[in-house]
Amino acid sequence: MSAADLEPLPPPPRNLRMVIEYDGTAYAGWEKQKNGVGIQQLLQGAIRQITGEDTSVNGAGRTDAGVHALGQVASFTLQKRMPAVDLHRALNAVLPDDVAVLALEDVSLYFHARFSATGKIYRYLILNEPVRAPLLARTSHHVRSPLDLDAMRAAARELEGRHDFAAFARDVEPGDETVRTIWAIDVEREGRCVAIYVAGDGFLYNMVRIIAGTLAHVGVGKISSADMPGVLASQKRSSSGPTLPARGLALLRVFYGGRPSARPKDSCREIATP
Amino acid sequence: MSAADLEPLPPPPRNLRMVIEYDGTAYAGWEKQKNGVGIQQLLQGAIRQITGEDTSVNGAGRTDAGVHALGQVASFTLQKRMPAVDLHRALNAVLPDDVAVLALEDVSLYFHARFSATGKIYRYLILNEPVRAPLLARTSHHVRSPLDLDAMRAAARELEGRHDFAAFARDVEPGDETVRTIWAIDVEREGRCVAIYVAGDGFLYNMVRIIAGTLAHVGVGKISSADMPGVLASQKRSSSGPTLPARGLALLRVFYGGRPSARPKDSCREIATP
Repeated sequence: MSAADLEPLPPPPRNLRMVIEYDGTAYAGWEKQKNGVGIQQLLQGAIRQITGEDTSVNGAGRTDAGVHALGQVASFTLQKRMPAVDLHRALNAVLPDDVAVLALEDVSLYFHARFSATGKIYRYLILNEPVRAPLLARTSHHVRSPLDLDAMRAAARELEGRHDFAAFARDVEPGDETVRTIWAIDVEREGRCVAIYVAGDGFLYNMVRIIAGTLAHVGVGKISSADMPGVLASQKRSSSGPTLPARGLALLRVFYGGRPSARPKDSCREIATP
Repeated sequence: MSAADLEPLPPPPRNLRMVIEYDGTAYAGWEKQKNGVGIQQLLQGAIRQITGEDTSVNGAGRTDAGVHALGQVASFTLQKRMPAVDLHRALNAVLPDDVAVLALEDVSLYFHARFSATGKIYRYLILNEPVRAPLLARTSHHVRSPLDLDAMRAAARELEGRHDFAAFARDVEPGDETVRTIWAIDVEREGRCVAIYVAGDGFLYNMVRIIAGTLAHVGVGKISSADMPGVLASQKRSSSGPTLPARGLALLRVFYGGRPSARPKDSCREIATP
């Protein structure tokens, strides 16, 4: 067999990195479900429509149904040589109003949005007024009773650091690795809302929503910050607070290439602002 | 005929004032249309469901389809003696997520939300970034080109005061009174958006959306602030800018009992903050 008999090798694929914003209200989550469209599926459909290629879009965080993103990151490979700036514009032209690609660029073939990620910041918004707010209904959870922010901050301090977060996760199976490091939890009054920012190297299933529910219980006086070490030590889901609804949660930012700062207790705001 | 033959007079009705917030995306506007539900109709239905009474809910501003409100005011009369605090809670329990009554109280029978109003503040939100923002898609209009805020502010100064705003209104008929007083127009950078606040004693049809469209044209350099006196003087709709989409507009607040401040050029923010 001579060299001429060999099929020419296809050109190496390119690897692209995208930053995505979405209003998750209408979606089954990042991944599709039996009864709903996933953001991943929608993006793959848009890429196919423009390039004719079937590709797998890998997201950094598999957000649940109804969860939003202001800075989800995803990567995918492509054969087509279309400039990234043109593909970016074309994607936003075919995607619906509630999903947009904020940035798109060619990256090293070694980059993988999920496996290369070294941390994430999430925000949970609690509308904290006597009456619900229609213009914030899709993006916040309503708590009528006034929240004690100082108590919530004291509890947040207890959760920061490297801990076993089994008590703050859904569906933990025996043998699952449940130790994670929370870099910072900030609790801020923002207009009509209380915003809880949680930054860390990794998150268990429903972890941010359970942390938010636990801090909300602290905020209304049902439990105290002094209970937090015991809740962590229990490793029991039943000892932490409720899982707050998906609508209040948004994935703000994904980190790559190591922890963004050397200080042990940065505020999420400092981390989130590049 | 003796006094005993007379029917007893019904008790005098009570008059109630409500402050309403709504996400107008799903509605035909304040008033119902052939093809859509109105906010007014929705409120009247909720009041009927709770009290059994048919009443007419009079709104201060007849917002168009897709326009939002953070402080719409409405009044209605009622026979039923239910405490306002209970009616308030019951209304919010039956209204959908995108409409809420923020406040409800008994007021003098002389109060009428529309005829007693002495002014209003509206806000128009322009998302001013290269890419559209899914989480702001329902509440803002997207302008890609960077807006020159100083130029917009200079143009806003020319529109403040008492003028004939015929050039800034839709469907003006000969003989219509088109003189209005704009108390203040503020142009502010707010996060990813440019917010235009317009406060005044009254507004013509589409007036705020046309003012916003004209200021946006100034912001991208299509016209200049020096053109504003000529646009006003022309009294022609064709000389002002485009009517921006309804989604960016929100009725923030309605005033009663005279102008909120004696100074001639208050900022809207000062006026809006009681």
